[in-house]
Amino acid sequence: MTPRQRNFWAWGWADRFPDDDARRALAARAGAALGGGDLALGALPRLDDARVPEPRVSVPTELSAFASADRFERVTHTYGRAYRDVLRGYRGDFSAAPDVVLRPRDEAEIVRAIRWCEQENVALVPFGGGTSVVGGVEATSGDRYRGVASLDLGAFDRVLEIDAKSRAAKIQAGARGPVLEEQLAPHGLSLRFYPQSFEHATLGGWIATRAGGHFATRLTHIDDLVESIRMVTPRGVIESRRLPASGAGPSPDRALLGSEGILGIITEAWVRVQARPRWRSSASVFFDDLPAAANAARAVVQSGEFPANCRALDAREAMMNGVPTDGGAVLVLGFESADRDTASSMANALSVGLASGGRCPNGAKHRDAGERGGDPSAETWREAFLGAPYLQSALVTLGVIADTFETGCTWDRFDELHAAVLEATTEAMQRCCGAGFVTCRLTHVYPDGVAPYFTFVAPARQGGELEQWGEIKRAASDALLAHGGTITHHHAVGRMHRPWYDRQRPELFAEALRAMKRTLDPHGIMNPGVLVDP
Amino acid sequence: MTPRQRNFWAWGWADRFPDDDARRALAARAGAALGGGDLALGALPRLDDARVPEPRVSVPTELSAFASADRFERVTHTYGRAYRDVLRGYRGDFSAAPDVVLRPRDEAEIVRAIRWCEQENVALVPFGGGTSVVGGVEATSGDRYRGVASLDLGAFDRVLEIDAKSRAAKIQAGARGPVLEEQLAPHGLSLRFYPQSFEHATLGGWIATRAGGHFATRLTHIDDLVESIRMVTPRGVIESRRLPASGAGPSPDRALLGSEGILGIITEAWVRVQARPRWRSSASVFFDDLPAAANAARAVVQSGEFPANCRALDAREAMMNGVPTDGGAVLVLGFESADRDTASSMANALSVGLASGGRCPNGAKHRDAGERGGDPSAETWREAFLGAPYLQSALVTLGVIADTFETGCTWDRFDELHAAVLEATTEAMQRCCGAGFVTCRLTHVYPDGVAPYFTFVAPARQGGELEQWGEIKRAASDALLAHGGTITHHHAVGRMHRPWYDRQRPELFAEALRAMKRTLDPHGIMNPGVLVDP
Repeated sequence: MTPRQRNFWAWGWADRFPDDDARRALAARAGAALGGGDLALGALPRLDDARVPEPRVSVPTELSAFASADRFERVTHTYGRAYRDVLRGYRGDFSAAPDVVLRPRDEAEIVRAIRWCEQENVALVPFGGGTSVVGGVEATSGDRYRGVASLDLGAFDRVLEIDAKSRAAKIQAGARGPVLEEQLAPHGLSLRFYPQSFEHATLGGWIATRAGGHFATRLTHIDDLVESIRMVTPRGVIESRRLPASGAGPSPDRALLGSEGILGIITEAWVRVQARPRWRSSASVFFDDLPAAANAARAVVQSGEFPANCRALDAREAMMNGVPTDGGAVLVLGFESADRDTASSMANALSVGLASGGRCPNGAKHRDAGERGGDPSAETWREAFLGAPYLQSALVTLGVIADTFETGCTWDRFDELHAAVLEATTEAMQRCCGAGFVTCRLTHVYPDGVAPYFTFVAPARQGGELEQWGEIKRAASDALLAHGGTITHHHAVGRMHRPWYDRQRPELFAEALRAMKRTLDPHGIMNPGVLVDP
Repeated sequence: MTPRQRNFWAWGWADRFPDDDARRALAARAGAALGGGDLALGALPRLDDARVPEPRVSVPTELSAFASADRFERVTHTYGRAYRDVLRGYRGDFSAAPDVVLRPRDEAEIVRAIRWCEQENVALVPFGGGTSVVGGVEATSGDRYRGVASLDLGAFDRVLEIDAKSRAAKIQAGARGPVLEEQLAPHGLSLRFYPQSFEHATLGGWIATRAGGHFATRLTHIDDLVESIRMVTPRGVIESRRLPASGAGPSPDRALLGSEGILGIITEAWVRVQARPRWRSSASVFFDDLPAAANAARAVVQSGEFPANCRALDAREAMMNGVPTDGGAVLVLGFESADRDTASSMANALSVGLASGGRCPNGAKHRDAGERGGDPSAETWREAFLGAPYLQSALVTLGVIADTFETGCTWDRFDELHAAVLEATTEAMQRCCGAGFVTCRLTHVYPDGVAPYFTFVAPARQGGELEQWGEIKRAASDALLAHGGTITHHHAVGRMHRPWYDRQRPELFAEALRAMKRTLDPHGIMNPGVLVDP
């Protein structure tokens, strides 16, 4: 059986890319949404037409067992899946392709790869699922390096050990979501971590980027699921002790979480796992607008209920996602539990939502799905959630700029930030695209703040897309920072967010981080350009 | 009114030290527990008899507005309150006294203090409440420094700002527990952080040492309550952005949490606050022994209930603390909520506890105390909890070595760790004291592990106490590390835990931390000897 292939230029599996019927339907919807007629279907790119530069370094004999300069390998390791990545891929521009792709099968081969890169002055880019939306896996070597090697962790995909008593598992860093869940399932356990990249991204990538799952509260950041980390740095291995908690100095794990490949390569981690949920409750509460729904979401989490889902969607966002509303915004509440009925928690949250001015004409739905069963409405949402990035890629072929960005802010800043970001983004789209719209949802809520997630869609001018996109991105990012937001709540910094990250993080912390990097990566080969400059 | 004075050699307030009647009662109890007769009451030390060396550096004119070489100031800033601190203080040995005590009133004075220390090569020790039990505030300068300055943050004791919408407050680092709670109370808010040092220790000290509160689950580590930190380092100010969560690189806050004064001086922080609880439920569940109670505690938190209290005490620990049992161990469960009745959560936890083999003859008690009321049984526990360190100090005057230590480990390691630590500690006490006993309680429980807390009591040989104590401490600490524990779950590393911390933390992480320290503290004046050597 041929392994299922990833699309060489677009999001996800090649066989799941929207077909022409689907693209036509999308073209009609997007065209109408942008106030014009149906959009034209652009031709899809062919791998043969991809423009890939000659490798600047050759595959060395000592690495030949796991190194390749194969064209498909190099093309599929060139970019992540940001809008600008997909656009360049669509245009056949793979000028940033790595010179060599390394697929080590054990840590000894990783060490050999590092040694070679140090000796040859080759930049080394750790590659997990390649789903970065911030330029995290694209290293243009510039003058400083002789070339770029992409190091794919694909062979590190096993659950190595399960400690059922402690509800923890030792998992290799290259394991993708479905692969690790499949190995945990026979034990009745789950990592219960569902970012939008779930199908393709890897545990190591999630740890390196401080990824966030789709649950709205509590154990939803990978940070909180990590018990210990093993990383191969150019100086040797760092492995933290497996502990439920510790007060012994600054946390080593927290120094590696979010290090985005600049300190070393995460090879495995002990993570906290959970029993698979059985009971579920869900309800939709309607509000006049998003700030009103946000206010209710705040009241729910501040009342001590922590729903698995607490997604607020503005009217347009709801429409685009097929989520019913009564014309305004909607707050989708969901609880799940492996241990007991979720009806009373839902009743509590719902009463808080109604007291905050919400309307819930359909009431709550409760479900005891049995240990192995699923919840059809949750499955529907999940399919749409996992499918959204395919639509973004398809929109590129219709001449549409479609992208998302997200942030986090304390509650006192939210209303102003939300209004300012909508205004700045809309203004930028009008200025450089002549049209476009932006929507907002809340993906994560905390007692002290919220993570708003924005989607913008605008007509592209052929050949000018990157410039147009850049102008919108700059306007939106400036507004985020000006109103107390972070440049990223769960998408990482990479190369794309550097200008805003550089303004956001304390300068002396950046100096301290550079000092750490010099200590662990003295030759400065690890993922250069990300987070800090040498 | 004279400000209430701290005891110059023992724990806490001078006016709360046990009087002779209380000491006699303690002498009878401790003597019996150690298998002998009543212990003799040692004379209490007098400040006039304290042996304090001449200052090696003189108070500089430019700092004279906030610097002092006063004898009482120097004596009360010599030690924390570890057993060996109290013993030395009791013996009148203040040879480690700082040469000068600085009490800056604003950040500008902190900067001037740092400059002076750099110029004069004086070690600078940040001093919060002085409650360290790990030698965190005691710097002997050795040859490397001309002297030692203790920098007391006492003037930084204000709640500067409250953001009620986000349930957050900006608080100065020198604020002690009661002082900050008093300022939050009019707003109906609470930091809800109750370590045993609550009355004396400071927010900055808690952050610097990654302190743990007395709640058994969830928001109980100061780490989780911190929204942003402001620190004055020798190189300048680091201030992180106020955010509910962020994925932008490694967390700056987490690098400062647990830095124990080696990187700079925390001056203020935004922290998450909570509504004051109103409903409370409590229950005691009896088990044959501590491992059985631990097993039930594990089942409770793994079932998705997270009690505020989930303390398991072995039989002797329960007896010493006046907690009723039926002869074996006890699991004390408690829930509290500002928002709703806690009865159903208690019923859930209790049913799990009973299913784990527990006995609950008295059932659960529920209480709606009203927004301002208290719970008498919780108050009783709190008084005993806050009073325990006074007894430790009093035991020193009876010729008894009494100390505590704590750890954290994953559940799979607990039974073996518990047995091994009891054995190693008992064996060491027998060997070097001829008698002694050790007890254990569980202070914090997690789905993946537990924090056991041990107390040991042994007869001292006058003049040999530090050697005896050292032998017991070494045996216990070695056993902790050998069985998968951390050298500290919430007491920090300081100077006392260095040998085991040095074995526990990854060596390359220590190198990275040293690199950070060199960056932020290039002259190496900040709290030398703690965590890492230069």
